[in-house]
Amino acid sequence: MQWVKVLGGVVGAAALLGLGIIVGHFAIPKGADSPAPSASASQDLDLKILQTVMEQLDANRIRENLRELSKEPHLATSPRDEALVQLLLQRWQDPESGLDSARTTEYEVLLSFPSGEQPNRVDVVNSTGAVLFSCRQSEENVTGEQGGPDVVPPYAAYAPPGTPQGPLVYANQGSEEDFKELQKEEVKLQDSIVLTRYGGVGRGAKAVNAAKYGVAGVLVYTDPKDINDGKSLPNETFPHSWCLPPSGVERGSYFEYFGDPLTPYLPATPSSFRLNSDNASGFPPIPIQPIGFEDAQVLLCNLGGKLAPANWQGGLGCDYNLGPGFRSNGIFPEDGQVNVSVHNRLELRNSSNVLGIIRGAVEPDRYVLYGNHRDSWVHGAVDPSTGTAVLLELSRVLGTLLKKGTWRPRRSIVFASWGAEEFGLIGSTEFTEEFFSKLQERAVAYINVDISVFANATLRVQGTPPIQSVVFSAAKQISAPGSSGLSIYDNWIRYYNRSSSVYGLVPSVGTLGAGSDYAPFIHFLGISSMDIAYTYDRSKTSARIYPTYHTAFDTFDYVDKFLDPGFSSHQAVARTAGSVLLRLSDSLFLPLNVSDYSETLRSFLQAAENLLLEQHNISFGPLVTAVEKFEGAATSFNQRIATLQEGTPDPLQVRMINDQLMLLERTFLNSQAFPEERYYSHVLWAPRTGSVATFPGLSNAYSQAENTGHEPAAWAEVQRQLSIVVAALEGAAATLRPVADL
Amino acid sequence: MQWVKVLGGVVGAAALLGLGIIVGHFAIPKGADSPAPSASASQDLDLKILQTVMEQLDANRIRENLRELSKEPHLATSPRDEALVQLLLQRWQDPESGLDSARTTEYEVLLSFPSGEQPNRVDVVNSTGAVLFSCRQSEENVTGEQGGPDVVPPYAAYAPPGTPQGPLVYANQGSEEDFKELQKEEVKLQDSIVLTRYGGVGRGAKAVNAAKYGVAGVLVYTDPKDINDGKSLPNETFPHSWCLPPSGVERGSYFEYFGDPLTPYLPATPSSFRLNSDNASGFPPIPIQPIGFEDAQVLLCNLGGKLAPANWQGGLGCDYNLGPGFRSNGIFPEDGQVNVSVHNRLELRNSSNVLGIIRGAVEPDRYVLYGNHRDSWVHGAVDPSTGTAVLLELSRVLGTLLKKGTWRPRRSIVFASWGAEEFGLIGSTEFTEEFFSKLQERAVAYINVDISVFANATLRVQGTPPIQSVVFSAAKQISAPGSSGLSIYDNWIRYYNRSSSVYGLVPSVGTLGAGSDYAPFIHFLGISSMDIAYTYDRSKTSARIYPTYHTAFDTFDYVDKFLDPGFSSHQAVARTAGSVLLRLSDSLFLPLNVSDYSETLRSFLQAAENLLLEQHNISFGPLVTAVEKFEGAATSFNQRIATLQEGTPDPLQVRMINDQLMLLERTFLNSQAFPEERYYSHVLWAPRTGSVATFPGLSNAYSQAENTGHEPAAWAEVQRQLSIVVAALEGAAATLRPVADL
Repeated sequence: MQWVKVLGGVVGAAALLGLGIIVGHFAIPKGADSPAPSASASQDLDLKILQTVMEQLDANRIRENLRELSKEPHLATSPRDEALVQLLLQRWQDPESGLDSARTTEYEVLLSFPSGEQPNRVDVVNSTGAVLFSCRQSEENVTGEQGGPDVVPPYAAYAPPGTPQGPLVYANQGSEEDFKELQKEEVKLQDSIVLTRYGGVGRGAKAVNAAKYGVAGVLVYTDPKDINDGKSLPNETFPHSWCLPPSGVERGSYFEYFGDPLTPYLPATPSSFRLNSDNASGFPPIPIQPIGFEDAQVLLCNLGGKLAPANWQGGLGCDYNLGPGFRSNGIFPEDGQVNVSVHNRLELRNSSNVLGIIRGAVEPDRYVLYGNHRDSWVHGAVDPSTGTAVLLELSRVLGTLLKKGTWRPRRSIVFASWGAEEFGLIGSTEFTEEFFSKLQERAVAYINVDISVFANATLRVQGTPPIQSVVFSAAKQISAPGSSGLSIYDNWIRYYNRSSSVYGLVPSVGTLGAGSDYAPFIHFLGISSMDIAYTYDRSKTSARIYPTYHTAFDTFDYVDKFLDPGFSSHQAVARTAGSVLLRLSDSLFLPLNVSDYSETLRSFLQAAENLLLEQHNISFGPLVTAVEKFEGAATSFNQRIATLQEGTPDPLQVRMINDQLMLLERTFLNSQAFPEERYYSHVLWAPRTGSVATFPGLSNAYSQAENTGHEPAAWAEVQRQLSIVVAALEGAAATLRPVADL
Repeated sequence: MQWVKVLGGVVGAAALLGLGIIVGHFAIPKGADSPAPSASASQDLDLKILQTVMEQLDANRIRENLRELSKEPHLATSPRDEALVQLLLQRWQDPESGLDSARTTEYEVLLSFPSGEQPNRVDVVNSTGAVLFSCRQSEENVTGEQGGPDVVPPYAAYAPPGTPQGPLVYANQGSEEDFKELQKEEVKLQDSIVLTRYGGVGRGAKAVNAAKYGVAGVLVYTDPKDINDGKSLPNETFPHSWCLPPSGVERGSYFEYFGDPLTPYLPATPSSFRLNSDNASGFPPIPIQPIGFEDAQVLLCNLGGKLAPANWQGGLGCDYNLGPGFRSNGIFPEDGQVNVSVHNRLELRNSSNVLGIIRGAVEPDRYVLYGNHRDSWVHGAVDPSTGTAVLLELSRVLGTLLKKGTWRPRRSIVFASWGAEEFGLIGSTEFTEEFFSKLQERAVAYINVDISVFANATLRVQGTPPIQSVVFSAAKQISAPGSSGLSIYDNWIRYYNRSSSVYGLVPSVGTLGAGSDYAPFIHFLGISSMDIAYTYDRSKTSARIYPTYHTAFDTFDYVDKFLDPGFSSHQAVARTAGSVLLRLSDSLFLPLNVSDYSETLRSFLQAAENLLLEQHNISFGPLVTAVEKFEGAATSFNQRIATLQEGTPDPLQVRMINDQLMLLERTFLNSQAFPEERYYSHVLWAPRTGSVATFPGLSNAYSQAENTGHEPAAWAEVQRQLSIVVAALEGAAATLRPVADL
């Protein structure tokens, strides 16, 4: 059944809204502590309310939100960022459409900015030091929005200051393999400047890898092949298409961890202990600076040395050579060098989160969280304002029902607007540190909607397995944008699918890395999390991400003209995320299907067996048993829920089941599992170096054992990781068994 | 009001018991999963049931339990230890008086035993190596119970094998200060054998401290001054009094951590990853062997060198000299040396816990745990069988009510008999590792009754502040043994009291270290815990502990004749612990008073301020604020409970409050706080080196800063520890606020 058909049955709901406002405003107690005595312990999801919410989520209001949010650049902690804090507070405190309460929490965090006085520079100089060529220091003012003091010049946040100079080398994506290849080709890296292109590995990794080879400085650019499907001419790019203009530069954080760099594991309150920034870790070891492909072309197309491998070639219209230094027949002298001047500064700044709360009627101590960051690099129309525009519309619709007295969720809902995400998920991480105990005890799930629309082809969801079922339920009842007549679910399955051993062909839900604010929730706190967006038709573009990502071209018009004219994809995301939110906050039984972890565990097990088969006497018996125990416990658990649902379960029975559902994800945490990894403690989703999707600790330990020539200590770590996984799965299974069994 | 008066009102309860058995046996469903539908969500503590339990706890049955339990030596994993596992299972599976279910969990753990073939020896040898004197290899068979193959010879568990030889030095208690004193006196320690007396520092610390000075081997003995109030003659000691006979030797574990040494943080299942025992840490670095004071006298009274300081002197009837070597006019040649031959072996053994469960009627997913270890060093009548005898009687009385159908607790009760405690709390620690997630989510409290009767003067309770109120409530309603007519509470306050800023004069509840199986529950899991016993009149003895502790003289007759003739102190402990257990399992609102943490925090704060006042710009403002926030939140929280108790709160409201009560203790855990300390993560109760009772991390960091000449890094750690405490208190306060506030 599709959402559009469900809607047909609802008549007059909108007409009732206005009338209810006055009644609701005076009749509903505000700020009362305990649940209203009239709240029924059996309160369940109300499908009519769900329908009303779906109807009222308005594409045009989302568009107007986006216009306001992206009107000006709002870099973290900038005056405009603070103005948006006030905008959010105002919306969430609105007497007609606000929430029960809203507040800010402020943290004093370490950010990194380019110097106002000394611009970062990239120059080609000759042997006497004369400047022969300079890269742009800002993007071209194509639409009138790329100039002015609020547009932060392109830079690599947290890159250390320095003015290295040396012959230029092309290092592809700056991966470990790329540098090994250069070494193999006997390209001298010591004291060189390497030019890398975005992609392949994380930003910071390019500098970390380079430094190991004695490289003095790093440049990074976006290749038209990777971002523009090859297009690179001004008239092929924005504002003529969605493609990145030649002067566009991707900004970004080059910090290797997340959270405030100076206060790991502690909330960054003003009085908190802070590391000396010299003792802080995770910053790039050498200067690094991003440039546009217009400038990269000048450098790269004049490079000398051997021809780079075929898969290192790009879309700049010339052969890419390795260097070092320039070619003899180019525009630069062969001994010309590149000088990189980075003058970034670390600064302690106050960054705010905004929290808005709807008190649960029955179980106010159960929190369903929904958040997005607020800060952008420049105007940030797509990133993050497409998400915030949806957040504001969803909170408006729910707030209006709340203020009218039409609805109050069973559980509490917490809306959040995070600060300083672009610098490393800082606001959300500090939140999880400050609210650690409460969240660990009470958080049901975290829904993240960062960029809500990358493109308008299909839904894309990342999350932990238990959230699959609620997302599917939501997506099946909402119609996809466009004229296909398909539900979001049926459209989705055409683009991303997999063959499930349990369900057959289903849309594939991706896994959660550390790309947005869900990271501290899932990795540090073990809260079931998800990220929801609309995205590309991969048959139509191979762009690494939407082309103007983190540039001054990510503006309202870009979204309005190219990403989602009509904002129907925004509306689709608002409906999907809103439906998921309501199902989580209002269903009597939490709609988390823990049994859906079984498929993941089974596939991780098979991959681990293939990887490690008969190696060093690794016995998989205990792991096989643990997976089987989990499968059995989860199946029986679901049967018990089904039986309870047939009857009229008492409130405590439901609560006990829901506690098991809520806390399952927590059981996968082990603070001893990855002592080297900051925050990561989820034994199934920690970072994994190998390419095989399996238990990350096991995979990493195995890689280490392979790389260190099979030292006994390395194999002992493989065994230790195996035991950690077994203990986690046994513990998880145990929590799903009947609660009186111990 | 005293318990004895309450009892007066109950007539005929006992008569009903027999009748109920048949009804109960057939009428109550066994092993059903969900709470019986008839269970009332408002089920509260039934004072009549409580009275019945108090009445039925039978001193003579406890005595008979003790006789059976201590009949034979039952060293961990010995055949008799396994036989007692069966005894416990049989009792807990008894159809008339058993629990809902009982089972064993087995772990493969690393223990340490003396060699069967090569006895450990301590000899005095002359310069040609001829043996001039040998210490006893076993205790004198005074009562016929000190001989035979099941009596393990005295040894220091986990001491490494070795046969060091050297001149003898007396090192008092083997503390760091003691070795500094010897160094000051220029006593050569390198390659010496040092003789130490028990007390002052932990067993293992004596060897650790000695090894730092190049000492080759360590002896340890029990001085009559420390254990016998000076008495040392055979006719003054057991079996003629409770005093330790001259040949008695305290055995014990010298392992510095707790839990299985090879599987830290992992349950020691057969397939678990194990450290190589060479890589395991926490074992004594050099051989160490305990001896009796009869032998210590021969060594110490013949020692040469300077006279030891006054507070190093003891009760052996001679001047204690420092050495090195023997005196000129003694029985040994001056160059005589001491040879210590230790042949201990590490062995992997299977150790069992026994778990017995009573399913909760209303909230089966809330566990009140009650446990004691089962293993002893020899017969272990006092340690641990006085506790197990009480455990069996309490479980019999409750089991009988259960099987009759008279009673089922609101919450689940878990009884536990831990294995291998004497080697380092191994069974209980492995349990907390295996059941980590369940316990963290669901455990209400842990009650430990190890040695239940040290002596018969007064109750002695150690625990975290929230358990104070429930212990007081119980103790006020039970009459103390003897003819005083006082309640246990009023008797207690005469021996141990303090002036509370809130309550005035109250009995003082001690803090929890790592002396028994509560350690992993409070330190690793953050579960409110307590240890309950009857103990000494300190005006009548200064014995460090009951004199036959860990010797072959700790027998049934010892208890029956000297510690608790008539077993009325046993009964008092059974009633107190039983009442506490019932109140925790059955009260509608959990009887944990979180507000009682305020006094602790306030006193820790004051001590910290005194310690650190105006040092290195340490600002206490944030800590003061955090303490105040906690106080305010706890007070308001208690008011909300009081208000709810006046009305008829709905089941979910009660559950939410109880969750806050249960989980408060968890909020003090921080796995990043003490990275060097195995398992310790409770920021208020971790080990503290300084003598001032304050926040341990802060205190330890301060000591470190003082000792390292005020290095900036050390002061940074003080600041970090301060922030950890502040974050924990802020988090704790936050969880006590109204749950919808976030």
